[in-house]
Amino acid sequence: MSNNLSSYLTISTSISADLMNQISRLNPDKYAFLVDENTRKHCLHLLDIEKDYIIEIESGELNKNLATCESIWKELTHFGFTRKSLLINLGGGVIGDMGGFCAATFKRGISFINVPTTLLSQVDASIGGKLGIDFNGLKNHIGLFQEPNAVIISTQFLETLSERELKSGFAEIIKHSLIRSEDQWNYLQTHSFEQMEWGDIIPKSIKVKNDVVNEDPKENGLRKILNYGHTIGHAIETHFLNSSTPLTHGEAVALGMILENKLAVKMDLLSEEQSILIEDYINGIYSFPEDLPGYQILKSHLIQDKKNDKSGLRFSLLKKVAQCTYDVLAEEQVLKEILK
Amino acid sequence: MSNNLSSYLTISTSISADLMNQISRLNPDKYAFLVDENTRKHCLHLLDIEKDYIIEIESGELNKNLATCESIWKELTHFGFTRKSLLINLGGGVIGDMGGFCAATFKRGISFINVPTTLLSQVDASIGGKLGIDFNGLKNHIGLFQEPNAVIISTQFLETLSERELKSGFAEIIKHSLIRSEDQWNYLQTHSFEQMEWGDIIPKSIKVKNDVVNEDPKENGLRKILNYGHTIGHAIETHFLNSSTPLTHGEAVALGMILENKLAVKMDLLSEEQSILIEDYINGIYSFPEDLPGYQILKSHLIQDKKNDKSGLRFSLLKKVAQCTYDVLAEEQVLKEILK
Repeated sequence: MSNNLSSYLTISTSISADLMNQISRLNPDKYAFLVDENTRKHCLHLLDIEKDYIIEIESGELNKNLATCESIWKELTHFGFTRKSLLINLGGGVIGDMGGFCAATFKRGISFINVPTTLLSQVDASIGGKLGIDFNGLKNHIGLFQEPNAVIISTQFLETLSERELKSGFAEIIKHSLIRSEDQWNYLQTHSFEQMEWGDIIPKSIKVKNDVVNEDPKENGLRKILNYGHTIGHAIETHFLNSSTPLTHGEAVALGMILENKLAVKMDLLSEEQSILIEDYINGIYSFPEDLPGYQILKSHLIQDKKNDKSGLRFSLLKKVAQCTYDVLAEEQVLKEILK
Repeated sequence: MSNNLSSYLTISTSISADLMNQISRLNPDKYAFLVDENTRKHCLHLLDIEKDYIIEIESGELNKNLATCESIWKELTHFGFTRKSLLINLGGGVIGDMGGFCAATFKRGISFINVPTTLLSQVDASIGGKLGIDFNGLKNHIGLFQEPNAVIISTQFLETLSERELKSGFAEIIKHSLIRSEDQWNYLQTHSFEQMEWGDIIPKSIKVKNDVVNEDPKENGLRKILNYGHTIGHAIETHFLNSSTPLTHGEAVALGMILENKLAVKMDLLSEEQSILIEDYINGIYSFPEDLPGYQILKSHLIQDKKNDKSGLRFSLLKKVAQCTYDVLAEEQVLKEILK
């Protein structure tokens, strides 16, 4: 039993059957699973289908790089994969983004299915066809746009996650509510994190992203609102990436939303009242490091943001709940004030 | 004055003006030239436009690899290139294929213009959107399909080439004639190599490829006829790649056409008479090494061909001049006989 949100996305209540259906539809000559040590241990056994080929990589954002791509391409070559073969990416965003990139470029492109196993990858990376890897210390610096041949989402995998991992994905649910759904924002405010019904909230959150991406697949305009919280969030995430206390993506984005709201207030786009309400809500869920980097430190990361052009740093900022602008040019002076 | 063959391809008689037109149309915030030491020396000065950013890589197929891509991506990052920047690939197939791949994957894709400077890249790589690099000793193993934003072809660059380089491109002209144009094949047979009028023959040859690619952009069927001569040709080229006497691409393809014709004769597809006629024509133009590798040596390269599936090795074979089949499965025994 499945609920099809878009042509290639399945919200699955029977993961093995739904995956088998998609494999049959694509009819590959061979298929392999891309896993990390965590999804190999906790998720792979939930799939009751033949597993002739398994490629295991080391988990973590630090391995989302060219060296890991090389090892994946070598394994596919070693397995004798052809253009009619299929890669099934079983894992979080790193597995989906990098596995997708490797499949889309192996012999100029083979089919791939993403089976996201984290809340973050289910509500975010599963939609929109952004594939890529980090390069030279810059997140998703090398990549391309291409939809997977299928995405299958099952809440069954969420039981394998820690609370911190769940909360990492939850930041994207907050973001989707704030940029586009007052209803969902009201739901979040009236239910505690522990009360969330993932089976309900995930499809609704995905729908927000799916609608935006369908209107602007290549991020020429509207799609940039999905970057709300991410411009400063990515810079903070990059800053802490090599520290002894890296943040989760969701923690960085949650911080990014708070700080970008402050920017929006300074620029007379958002009311201070709404900014404080959102900040209080986020602070009720996440804990943040006390020692945050200032503008001078974040600047080198901010200027690499893909939304920028030669005129300067551009942001996607909230005007009120469910209304988000994009391509807003921010003055350096204002950034210095909010990033002290 | 230009003759537009397809929407993005210009046969130019005024290279600087045509390139400036395309740059103005794309309106990038910055643009860079990708060159090698040869095109920097012999071609760059023919372009009478501002050159603020130049990326130079070492020439040659051996450098068409990930390490060179990394150096290109680093330079683009160092230059502060954004998603609105443009890369202009000035060179042969290596520059076009690799520069295109780097542009198509930098920040998930920036614009690029190809200015092919060799006969080979003008009649072959300029059309069809095949981008890629060699990997693990396998040609074009990693890549993708994407059309350049513009291709500008000028015969002015051919004056910088040696006869051997010209002949390397000429093999693709022979191929295009044999698979799809009896007229052009008759022209070739009645004019010596020295008599060729490049300004006439290049657009005609490009048109053959362009028509085929437009009918099947992703190489699901018909486009495979462009691989005529290339299945065995690539295997031979790969074999000699690391030797002290590497073949040009055209020499390898010319040999590939002769050998694949012998295969077609053995399989009762092509008449022996036509096969001999073509072999004599090719032998009148090219010199080949005496010590050619046999099937046992070529096998490991042949099985990596992208046209194969699990049933075995597939070839694009001539039935007669201007009529080519594809996906023909060849028996190992027959291959052993022709590749002695």
